[in-house]
Amino acid sequence: MHVVTCIAPVNIAVIKYWGKRDEVLIVPTNDSLSGTLSMEQMHAKTTIMASPNFKKNCIWLNGKEESFDNERLLTCLREVQRRAERDGANKDLLKWHIHVCSENNFPTAAGLASSAAGYACFVYTLAQLYSVKGDVSQIARQGSGSACRSLAGGFVRWHMGSAPDGSDSIATQVVPETHWPEMRVIILVVNDKKKKVSSTSGMQRSVLTSELLKHRITYCVPQRVKDIEKAIISKDFNTFAEITMKDSNQFHAVALDTYPPAVYMNDVSHAIVDFIHCFNKAKKSTKVAYTFDAGPNACLYLLESAVAETIALVNHFFPGHNSKNIIQGLPVPPANVQETIAAIEKMGVVRHEEGLLKFVINTRVGEGPKQLTDSSQHLLSPSGVPKRLAE
Amino acid sequence: MHVVTCIAPVNIAVIKYWGKRDEVLIVPTNDSLSGTLSMEQMHAKTTIMASPNFKKNCIWLNGKEESFDNERLLTCLREVQRRAERDGANKDLLKWHIHVCSENNFPTAAGLASSAAGYACFVYTLAQLYSVKGDVSQIARQGSGSACRSLAGGFVRWHMGSAPDGSDSIATQVVPETHWPEMRVIILVVNDKKKKVSSTSGMQRSVLTSELLKHRITYCVPQRVKDIEKAIISKDFNTFAEITMKDSNQFHAVALDTYPPAVYMNDVSHAIVDFIHCFNKAKKSTKVAYTFDAGPNACLYLLESAVAETIALVNHFFPGHNSKNIIQGLPVPPANVQETIAAIEKMGVVRHEEGLLKFVINTRVGEGPKQLTDSSQHLLSPSGVPKRLAE
Repeated sequence: MHVVTCIAPVNIAVIKYWGKRDEVLIVPTNDSLSGTLSMEQMHAKTTIMASPNFKKNCIWLNGKEESFDNERLLTCLREVQRRAERDGANKDLLKWHIHVCSENNFPTAAGLASSAAGYACFVYTLAQLYSVKGDVSQIARQGSGSACRSLAGGFVRWHMGSAPDGSDSIATQVVPETHWPEMRVIILVVNDKKKKVSSTSGMQRSVLTSELLKHRITYCVPQRVKDIEKAIISKDFNTFAEITMKDSNQFHAVALDTYPPAVYMNDVSHAIVDFIHCFNKAKKSTKVAYTFDAGPNACLYLLESAVAETIALVNHFFPGHNSKNIIQGLPVPPANVQETIAAIEKMGVVRHEEGLLKFVINTRVGEGPKQLTDSSQHLLSPSGVPKRLAE
Repeated sequence: MHVVTCIAPVNIAVIKYWGKRDEVLIVPTNDSLSGTLSMEQMHAKTTIMASPNFKKNCIWLNGKEESFDNERLLTCLREVQRRAERDGANKDLLKWHIHVCSENNFPTAAGLASSAAGYACFVYTLAQLYSVKGDVSQIARQGSGSACRSLAGGFVRWHMGSAPDGSDSIATQVVPETHWPEMRVIILVVNDKKKKVSSTSGMQRSVLTSELLKHRITYCVPQRVKDIEKAIISKDFNTFAEITMKDSNQFHAVALDTYPPAVYMNDVSHAIVDFIHCFNKAKKSTKVAYTFDAGPNACLYLLESAVAETIALVNHFFPGHNSKNIIQGLPVPPANVQETIAAIEKMGVVRHEEGLLKFVINTRVGEGPKQLTDSSQHLLSPSGVPKRLAE
């Protein structure tokens, strides 16, 4: 019997992935680039156990058993095992069935890129189980495209590649988390009731129908990736922030240019955008950058020096329901923001009604996946059943 | 003493104008094309009086005196007078000061292209006053760009032109209103509290910052104008509708790609878009097209045969406050829509809360400006004072 438990992080793109040039291989129409979020606040955790006693492969996601008969899951398993064979792994181990148990320590439904963290964790854990060496990002990519960017810490670039088999469409680290330790991330989780367009079908439709997408991938993204990589390496926050905001806006523009349109931001999202622009204007300097994935939640990139003021302003302009504290994550020192509030209100930003935000996560850029060696961390009991079901 | 009263229509673009290549001349970065709305439901009305007794030029807009010291107003006056001189108008008449009184018979603040109708009416009325012959669209254009498209009925194309002085940036009629008499228009006026980005500053910012705008004006619009003109001439509603919706979405995409973004549609606008797509899908045919100007209101183009059902569905999915009737304009026969409602609800569209729409105007494509010869129609008393102030 063999068991391994690992955790893997969420990543939030600053240059967005939107469009596949091959649906099966999951190779994208453009490079993308993301920050990896600290696993202290948010992570996926996966235990994989292989045993000669298991009759079949089983998987439990967030406490619920799911079918293993899932194309993407099976692809990832097959590819890691093929690599293990090549690396000379134990032949018996490779024959045993596996039990997989995976959990996120944050709400899956909140639209916080949970599938990326989940597939990254699955592939990373499998790789440890079978002692696979080397980069497995091109395998994780075949589970969920952006999962490949969750396999390293700091800032990570997913190269679109050009090989027909997708072998050069891999993720590489631009800088580790230690390069720019002041980089912080605040996630504003928006209350939402809208009908959803899945990102898979939205991006399919964009590739088929958006004329603007072609321009974006051919002309805009290559320059932006180059520029933001340079900004990250030289720790130029202004440039980093401006490109991040522009690329988020352009991704949502392309989604809107899709037919029928794919709309992910809502009125609250746009109110956050307006608030951030007014905040930056009030401070006469770019303190905060927003970015939005395929959902209404805002992800703010900012330096440590701006966290206290930003959180205080978010609390003021987007108060929680019944004014309750909605800030989670890293501790935040208090800040006096009366003057900034006055300046922002002068620009026409109002204090919004309560409860527009569900909660706020204060976190930072962090490291890549890691194995947990303490056996108490396993999510599966020695017999291969999820501990929380066995209790 | 000389007095003339005219009315001019609102126009709603199906290929959008967004971007000036010269801010003073108001020459656009692309051709645009619009339908002229019937003046029975909506129009601007302007009376202009010239008299040797007037001490200065005066203007009243919707009952309120405004300053005549307005660059665009003065440009239009100067240009019409220059044309009148060339045409050999009475020299005395041209020396007299004028009083201008203008009113819209629809709420100015509702974001219904009131400045276009207003400037079209001002220039058209001036032209009648001074007996100017020929096309004055290039003059109206210098008041408010899209005003030039309100100088003819039916469908009208504003040519971007290429002359440095803007002389070939004129509006021409594609077809008169009699060509496609079944064409109807329904305007959904959305309740809105959002901060506004003026279209003048929004489009300036788009020209300066949106990379996608360049692609739109160079590649997308020329093809679309050609295709929609053909669809209008051959009365191909499907093609007309699809291009109309795509171009509205692309214009808002470009506005979103602007930095900082210019956002005009809100959650209610997007709910209308989703409703229309589901309606068309339920009917297995494109019954209705939406288009949105620089604001949240929807303008629906449809054929007469679809009006009753569309209005009934709007009433169901977007009920008025306290279920009161919010439909204005042309009379609407009742329609049985139970089956269609069920089909649309199956696609996840819900009956929205009451009061999201302020009102709905049921109208049609109509004719161009005209002079009212009945003197009771004048908005100015014989002494040159607005009648409604004199009462």
